[in-house]
Amino acid sequence: MDKIETSRMPRKFTFDKSYFSPAAYELESSVIRDILKYSSQPGVISFAGGLPAPESFPIEELKVIADRVLLQYGTRALQYGLSRGYGPLREAIAERVSVRGGEGITADNIIITGGSQQGLDMVGRAFLEPGRYVLCSRPTYLGALQAFNYYRAKYAPVEIDDEGMKVDDLEDKIKKYHPAFIYVVPNFQNPAGVTLSEERRYHLVDLAYKYKLPIIDDNPYGELRYTGTDRPSLKRLGGDIVIQLGTFSKIISPGLRIGWTVAAAEVSDVFERVKQSTDLHTNQFAQYMVHEYIISGALEPHIARLVVKYRERKDAMLMTMAEFFPDTVRWTKPEGGLFLWVVLPEHIKSSELFFKAIEEKVAFVPGKSFDPLGKMENTMRLNFSNASCDMICEGIKRLGRVFAEM
Amino acid sequence: MDKIETSRMPRKFTFDKSYFSPAAYELESSVIRDILKYSSQPGVISFAGGLPAPESFPIEELKVIADRVLLQYGTRALQYGLSRGYGPLREAIAERVSVRGGEGITADNIIITGGSQQGLDMVGRAFLEPGRYVLCSRPTYLGALQAFNYYRAKYAPVEIDDEGMKVDDLEDKIKKYHPAFIYVVPNFQNPAGVTLSEERRYHLVDLAYKYKLPIIDDNPYGELRYTGTDRPSLKRLGGDIVIQLGTFSKIISPGLRIGWTVAAAEVSDVFERVKQSTDLHTNQFAQYMVHEYIISGALEPHIARLVVKYRERKDAMLMTMAEFFPDTVRWTKPEGGLFLWVVLPEHIKSSELFFKAIEEKVAFVPGKSFDPLGKMENTMRLNFSNASCDMICEGIKRLGRVFAEM
Repeated sequence: MDKIETSRMPRKFTFDKSYFSPAAYELESSVIRDILKYSSQPGVISFAGGLPAPESFPIEELKVIADRVLLQYGTRALQYGLSRGYGPLREAIAERVSVRGGEGITADNIIITGGSQQGLDMVGRAFLEPGRYVLCSRPTYLGALQAFNYYRAKYAPVEIDDEGMKVDDLEDKIKKYHPAFIYVVPNFQNPAGVTLSEERRYHLVDLAYKYKLPIIDDNPYGELRYTGTDRPSLKRLGGDIVIQLGTFSKIISPGLRIGWTVAAAEVSDVFERVKQSTDLHTNQFAQYMVHEYIISGALEPHIARLVVKYRERKDAMLMTMAEFFPDTVRWTKPEGGLFLWVVLPEHIKSSELFFKAIEEKVAFVPGKSFDPLGKMENTMRLNFSNASCDMICEGIKRLGRVFAEM
Repeated sequence: MDKIETSRMPRKFTFDKSYFSPAAYELESSVIRDILKYSSQPGVISFAGGLPAPESFPIEELKVIADRVLLQYGTRALQYGLSRGYGPLREAIAERVSVRGGEGITADNIIITGGSQQGLDMVGRAFLEPGRYVLCSRPTYLGALQAFNYYRAKYAPVEIDDEGMKVDDLEDKIKKYHPAFIYVVPNFQNPAGVTLSEERRYHLVDLAYKYKLPIIDDNPYGELRYTGTDRPSLKRLGGDIVIQLGTFSKIISPGLRIGWTVAAAEVSDVFERVKQSTDLHTNQFAQYMVHEYIISGALEPHIARLVVKYRERKDAMLMTMAEFFPDTVRWTKPEGGLFLWVVLPEHIKSSELFFKAIEEKVAFVPGKSFDPLGKMENTMRLNFSNASCDMICEGIKRLGRVFAEM
């Protein structure tokens, strides 16, 4: 071993920028993840993350299920698996998706992903090339921007209102930018909480077929509806031209990282090869656990309980906002999901308010990060799923004080 | 709901090739995965996959640990986590890596990946651009080729012998191809089972510093040594210029999909952003489980048992080969790992033998898939970790019969 100690080699080396692929090097770290540093300080009430209520995780049931999976299927659940995912889980998902609005979906249309974020990355990998446009709403989901940015996407953004993505100038933008696809979070959108109206869904699908343009229907919150009635599913209306992304992160556990894609066979074939080259397959043990959880019948009542809990939290937030926010502030009133969107007077920068809010021990995400154009300075996203009703009321009062000083 | 039933939209759509990014569309499905269709037929003895012995999985211990993790850390293990990975697991890995030859490694150098395949994809994403060369051995690990192919890598392959990658023309190839990095599996290489000699390790690291060229030290099998003594770790010899990939797939369970990268801080920063954009973070529950398994003290004796088992299987395979393979056939004699490499007479195509072998109910992987140049027709890879000694002997006898008919 002497030889090693007296190594002839210099051991220090620094990788400068020139070593890295520009697309990877220039990826920006998520603002939300930086904000977590502040929002996790003691005493801070955070509306910043998109975290489910941790006390709602079905820990006891999962303990029983983990035991059962290891006992009954241990050698398979711990072994290498198929890139498409565990067959029975794909079948169970196909059945759930079919019931909720995606007629004729079978396990052949399902690929298991490492959470919905991997679905977004797979979509980018399969469809994007540097400089291709993505048609999306403004604001839109930050994680989608991060996934597509690596593929050097450009954005053709469309404004939103209370009925979701506006459709007036959609056709003009399609003609002008020839986008690779339309990206939309139709239900309880992240970050704005708005839901795409039925009429606009038909319009979107009409345009998709007219211009042979795929729709990415990103649907992580669809089952978390607190008021109103479901609009027809984009996947159901659009059929093969729609690729839907789903996840168990918001209805079972994000830590298990189990999501899925619903896509036509030829798209699923490409996704499968992408999956194989990126991580071979998703955690088998977690796939077995989620499958057992679904077939045990525990998932549907669990979602029903989540809906009750999150509805209370959303109502608590909205009521306290109505009482303590100044008249100059506007916000959305979501029918489901985890987020709402606050619009401040035009001259206010929410990124500047952020540090005042941290002094008052309350955190949010400045809206700018959700704007493909990097503007929308006077907006912010608030999450209402993570904190208790009491904390939500207290946090909103604190935010009201910050606003009062504007 | 009538409106939906009488949808105005055509529901059928076919994605032709023009929709997809060529890099994703042209990804080839792994030959190994196609071969699994044949090799999983009843009665077939398979030397094809790279599967650990399933009966060795520590199912009982993991059951106890799964319970403990859910009971003690349930709300955290099921919640969103950090992109870099679970801190205590990163610390435990840093400690193990330091002990095994990577002085001064701390948790800051570790990023948790979804198995080693994701580490390979991250390396490709961070360092490759279309047309850049990868300097690698011939044959080399198929999964690395798949990961790098998406990034449109070209290959500058170097021949191997019993001491691993030959170094004679390495410098010429570096000057000629200006590769992005050197990719090497130094210990019990997949597919050939050979180990890079100490002298060549020094030579490789010397060249890396001379040409400021990163080395990717892919080390999934390093802890599975059956005979001989460890060579000095490439990571230890090379320090910052070496990026090491590790995994628990071969020493705990591949189904849990927990691997890691060991890299300089500035490389880890890029990997972290890549990880965030591709899947946010690795399964938290599995990370907690692996961490608990390591700190319980169960891992080291488990590896010791694996070494005994796999040594027996390797010896059984080598002894039966010596007895039943014709004199015209040559093979490597690995000191560890999961694979050995068979070289047939030059005129024989192993891909043609494959179907004869399946008739005899024995499977292998034709060597061609491991050649960056797509040749090496007269070679094959045999795995000795998955089947029992009895099955190995029987399978080798069957293969001997196939060879006898050549």
